[in-house]
Amino acid sequence: MEALVSIIMGSTSDMPVMEGAAKILNDFGIPFEIHALSAHRTPEEVEKFAKGASERGIKVIIAAAGMAAHLPGVIASMTTVPVIGVPVKASLEGLDSLLSIVQMPSGIPVATVGINAAQNAGILAAQIIATGDKTIAGELKKFKESLKKKVVQANEDLKNIKFPFKTN
Amino acid sequence: MEALVSIIMGSTSDMPVMEGAAKILNDFGIPFEIHALSAHRTPEEVEKFAKGASERGIKVIIAAAGMAAHLPGVIASMTTVPVIGVPVKASLEGLDSLLSIVQMPSGIPVATVGINAAQNAGILAAQIIATGDKTIAGELKKFKESLKKKVVQANEDLKNIKFPFKTN
Amino acid sequence: MEALVSIIMGSTSDMPVMEGAAKILNDFGIPFEIHALSAHRTPEEVEKFAKGASERGIKVIIAAAGMAAHLPGVIASMTTVPVIGVPVKASLEGLDSLLSIVQMPSGIPVATVGINAAQNAGILAAQIIATGDKTIAGELKKFKESLKKKVVQANEDLKNIKFPFKTN
Amino acid sequence: MEALVSIIMGSTSDMPVMEGAAKILNDFGIPFEIHALSAHRTPEEVEKFAKGASERGIKVIIAAAGMAAHLPGVIASMTTVPVIGVPVKASLEGLDSLLSIVQMPSGIPVATVGINAAQNAGILAAQIIATGDKTIAGELKKFKESLKKKVVQANEDLKNIKFPFKTN
Amino acid sequence: MEALVSIIMGSTSDMPVMEGAAKILNDFGIPFEIHALSAHRTPEEVEKFAKGASERGIKVIIAAAGMAAHLPGVIASMTTVPVIGVPVKASLEGLDSLLSIVQMPSGIPVATVGINAAQNAGILAAQIIATGDKTIAGELKKFKESLKKKVVQANEDLKNIKFPFKTN
Amino acid sequence: MEALVSIIMGSTSDMPVMEGAAKILNDFGIPFEIHALSAHRTPEEVEKFAKGASERGIKVIIAAAGMAAHLPGVIASMTTVPVIGVPVKASLEGLDSLLSIVQMPSGIPVATVGINAAQNAGILAAQIIATGDKTIAGELKKFKESLKKKVVQANEDLKNIKFPFKTN
Amino acid sequence: MEALVSIIMGSTSDMPVMEGAAKILNDFGIPFEIHALSAHRTPEEVEKFAKGASERGIKVIIAAAGMAAHLPGVIASMTTVPVIGVPVKASLEGLDSLLSIVQMPSGIPVATVGINAAQNAGILAAQIIATGDKTIAGELKKFKESLKKKVVQANEDLKNIKFPFKTN
Amino acid sequence: MEALVSIIMGSTSDMPVMEGAAKILNDFGIPFEIHALSAHRTPEEVEKFAKGASERGIKVIIAAAGMAAHLPGVIASMTTVPVIGVPVKASLEGLDSLLSIVQMPSGIPVATVGINAAQNAGILAAQIIATGDKTIAGELKKFKESLKKKVVQANEDLKNIKFPFKTN
Repeated sequence: MEALVSIIMGSTSDMPVMEGAAKILNDFGIPFEIHALSAHRTPEEVEKFAKGASERGIKVIIAAAGMAAHLPGVIASMTTVPVIGVPVKASLEGLDSLLSIVQMPSGIPVATVGINAAQNAGILAAQIIATGDKTIAGELKKFKESLKKKVVQANEDLKNIKFPFKTN
Repeated sequence: MEALVSIIMGSTSDMPVMEGAAKILNDFGIPFEIHALSAHRTPEEVEKFAKGASERGIKVIIAAAGMAAHLPGVIASMTTVPVIGVPVKASLEGLDSLLSIVQMPSGIPVATVGINAAQNAGILAAQIIATGDKTIAGELKKFKESLKKKVVQANEDLKNIKFPFKTN
Repeated sequence: MEALVSIIMGSTSDMPVMEGAAKILNDFGIPFEIHALSAHRTPEEVEKFAKGASERGIKVIIAAAGMAAHLPGVIASMTTVPVIGVPVKASLEGLDSLLSIVQMPSGIPVATVGINAAQNAGILAAQIIATGDKTIAGELKKFKESLKKKVVQANEDLKNIKFPFKTN
Repeated sequence: MEALVSIIMGSTSDMPVMEGAAKILNDFGIPFEIHALSAHRTPEEVEKFAKGASERGIKVIIAAAGMAAHLPGVIASMTTVPVIGVPVKASLEGLDSLLSIVQMPSGIPVATVGINAAQNAGILAAQIIATGDKTIAGELKKFKESLKKKVVQANEDLKNIKFPFKTN
Repeated sequence: MEALVSIIMGSTSDMPVMEGAAKILNDFGIPFEIHALSAHRTPEEVEKFAKGASERGIKVIIAAAGMAAHLPGVIASMTTVPVIGVPVKASLEGLDSLLSIVQMPSGIPVATVGINAAQNAGILAAQIIATGDKTIAGELKKFKESLKKKVVQANEDLKNIKFPFKTN
Repeated sequence: MEALVSIIMGSTSDMPVMEGAAKILNDFGIPFEIHALSAHRTPEEVEKFAKGASERGIKVIIAAAGMAAHLPGVIASMTTVPVIGVPVKASLEGLDSLLSIVQMPSGIPVATVGINAAQNAGILAAQIIATGDKTIAGELKKFKESLKKKVVQANEDLKNIKFPFKTN
Repeated sequence: MEALVSIIMGSTSDMPVMEGAAKILNDFGIPFEIHALSAHRTPEEVEKFAKGASERGIKVIIAAAGMAAHLPGVIASMTTVPVIGVPVKASLEGLDSLLSIVQMPSGIPVATVGINAAQNAGILAAQIIATGDKTIAGELKKFKESLKKKVVQANEDLKNIKFPFKTN
Repeated sequence: MEALVSIIMGSTSDMPVMEGAAKILNDFGIPFEIHALSAHRTPEEVEKFAKGASERGIKVIIAAAGMAAHLPGVIASMTTVPVIGVPVKASLEGLDSLLSIVQMPSGIPVATVGINAAQNAGILAAQIIATGDKTIAGELKKFKESLKKKVVQANEDLKNIKFPFKTN
């Protein structure tokens, strides 16, 4: 079983945020790998990883970073594999991470998701893989249905709240 | 007793914020309903709700949402009933919610109140209903007087604070 | 013909922005008035205006202001008529106006629309009046249809753009 | 002993912040008063207060407010007594309060201090009074000396911190 | 030739920004279509488009929007096709558009690129298609080489700038 | 005739903004002086100026600065004369200047006015002087009346705007 | 052993942040001193310190400050020794400190590091000293290697996390 | 004559901003070089440049970048030579560039100057070189004197502005 998605972060301290991506890929049955790499501390490893990703069969890279968050952009500059960037909140409410990832120069896009939105990064990776994989596409449709159920359940719960002038 | 106001939120986790709206409508004796709907997870239910609101006698819709807060705007696009948007603080101090609700394109306004300002949403709903209902208008005048009393009481309390050079 | 909506601004320099509200009310056939009032320069006139608005038959007040934009909130504190606030862009991209209008304290809501969004203020006023007026409700439905037509037309226009690999 | 400075706030919940102003005025021996007033809830009392302040001998008004912070500006519009505005942090890190107070329109200045900076408001009030009162001017000079002493003491404390390569 | 990418915008006024996406897809030889749709003005057409996209063979959707930019998120909620969001600068330097697109709730990701970064949206779409298409993957590698050449040329140009103390 | 107010700026390029302060002081008949001083370029002159201001009879200092705007705070640290800070817009819409002036540490207040609000700085200076000068207090009252007249005139002008459904 | 680096802060309350600078200088074996000085409270001591720094053999000054953070800029204006500014987070998430330090006027640069980034200030000081000191240059290379090791270790740790679909 | 300072930018379009750095180095008689390099487009050239800089005798690197500005940080990660980062204003008033450069992770500092502040970057480079070069130190002192002269001249100019109540 070869990994299709690679989850990259700078240190184990990002893992509590990023396990949201790992869990959802696991739920979808998509083989993935997790690595620690740093744009600034292990640039050679980043280069080796990024340049070899496509040949190893990696279809999507998810890269997390905080503050002056360079990792997603640096990886994106060295591969044609789509890179999903996850801005991690570490200072300034995460605004610095978001801008450092999303405002990439012309030619090198990073597919940015919300601040700390690791689960969404995993879902987006699945959606990209699903463009060529009907099984995953089917899983995604089931997942979308499950989102609906939570809201329907919430609606039921809200019916039990009592106020004299509440009508439903 | 038919609901005149509909309070909409995405999940029960918004209820602690939104009960401020429910309580004030209850105090004013305005019949209301509470539903969980999601612009992204149950778009069909949102559409059904929005398109039927006017015929069911709903006069005002209060919709709460956080982050990329699309619910109030999406409902507003499907009805001519006034929609009050409540930006819920979930990230970036609520600034993302506020901008996602208030900066609507030409043609589809959302009446936006402050971040987490559910009580104000309820009062604004009452003010809109009061444009055609003298009883509610009377209740609002009484409510305004009660606001005054709290400040008057505060003034009394401040008199009891002692400093040698304090004169009142 | 008595005015149902009152458009308030601090000086004639706001008129280029605010004529968007006047035009749409005119299109809907809703009688309105326009006044210059200033929370800081003519506080007595503001008070006289605000306290008399309901009795004169005003159903909605639209108040525009820039920078430390106090006018909508000050009027709202003196009437139970719903007040729609229009943040005018004069400095800091309009962010100061927006926050000064929308972040009202508990008890005194202002129905805030987007920065310079005078047309939306007019439409929201019409929606509020339409809660008790079926003719205006009908006009609003027609207006919504016209919004659709512009997008449909845009779609036609986009078909005429040629690229070798463009398929529609 | 007539009050020379008036400290105004919207509710007793602002007192923990504003006692910084009261304490420093007390230390300087400047007679002061404290009142609760609200631009939105007791506009008539605000007007009565503001218009009578000068005749009652008030030389400086310190007004605190949070969020869409209108109180300092509204008072300033009704008196020629200098008004010092204290932005209280209640949401958005206090940025909304700061902009709502400092960005006043031409003609009605508010002397704004930092977010929650009540002590500085008290010192500024003392400085204004000292323009016509040599005793207070003398107190201020002593106060400035005391600021210096704290830094000198801090310098002594830092000498006791040991690192092998620390030289002082 | 069936479209693989769909470029969606709210009005023809977004075309000057979005032609950057069209041009690059054209350069890569990827068949695409362009439509005008609006989350708020033509919600039914949005729904019809989004739900049919996958069956029509669309692999990636690029959606542009400004201000309270709901279009990318609303489309994303109705399809499992990856949606790339382009925040269009219309107010507040584009910060409102960016936050309204990127800060999506859990379950519905939008792959967000920089403000007005339509070309990058086109490249990202090509990268997603290239995960299953070796020809496009090859085109992307050539494109990356061309980026390099511009910098190499710039380096040559900088050599011609003369200062007495400039050494290269 | 000795100057009562000192207007300080870093370079003649600030004069177009700061002449608003000079004009209003001139209108009020308050003697003033204008100097160029720089917290960073002429620190000794700043010190000499600040320490001598009180003895020369200066009652208020108005200091303008842009970007990392240190001048008002540095002067304030060297005198007990009240210092009014004018944030000059030079970058970041003036937000950097505003924060660098208003967010002073405990003990050293700067009375901050709005971005580029030189006229308001002049009026505030007059208000401070008026606490001990009945003539200036009288001038200020007249000035406040003149503010009212402009709004009254604007109201007249707005009456001349014609729309079929406009009622006044 | 004469100090080569001087660490300056306004009070002992900054020491928990700034000990990051002291520790790293200690690790590199660079002699340093720590002083408390305040731009606003002890301006004479600041001047004395800044003007004498170069002659005493100080090669780099690290200055920390919060809010309207003037200390680094004021020191920089009085010496040709490079000044590293550390914005301390005290309000507004540290954005006020950052802008007050980094946005210096032409002619007086401050080498600014990130919010609360005292360790980085120490490393930057070492890098400056290393431009003329091969021993320190060697230490820095070893330090860079140690950064790498942490990431390599993190990579090992991530391998131990188990998910059914995780492949490495 | 070997270059001591290297000025790096991503394209010739940054040259109008960055010539401020070149001019001041030229004025100080410091040999320098100018190169175009891109963190994302020519990562190999960046690596080759950064790793060889120290051995070629480069004492300071000045790197400019806009938007998600990674170049200064990426260079800093590959050398122990001090890197000065110049945030170039290209979007969001330059705030994205500033945060992407200054908020570097622990271990890899970038000495950040203000937005577009290329001249200050040149002066800071000179100050770093002057820590080991008395000639440059002398030039810097002369430069500081020249800053003073401009302010003194401005002061003379301001004396010629006439207002009836202006006293100097």
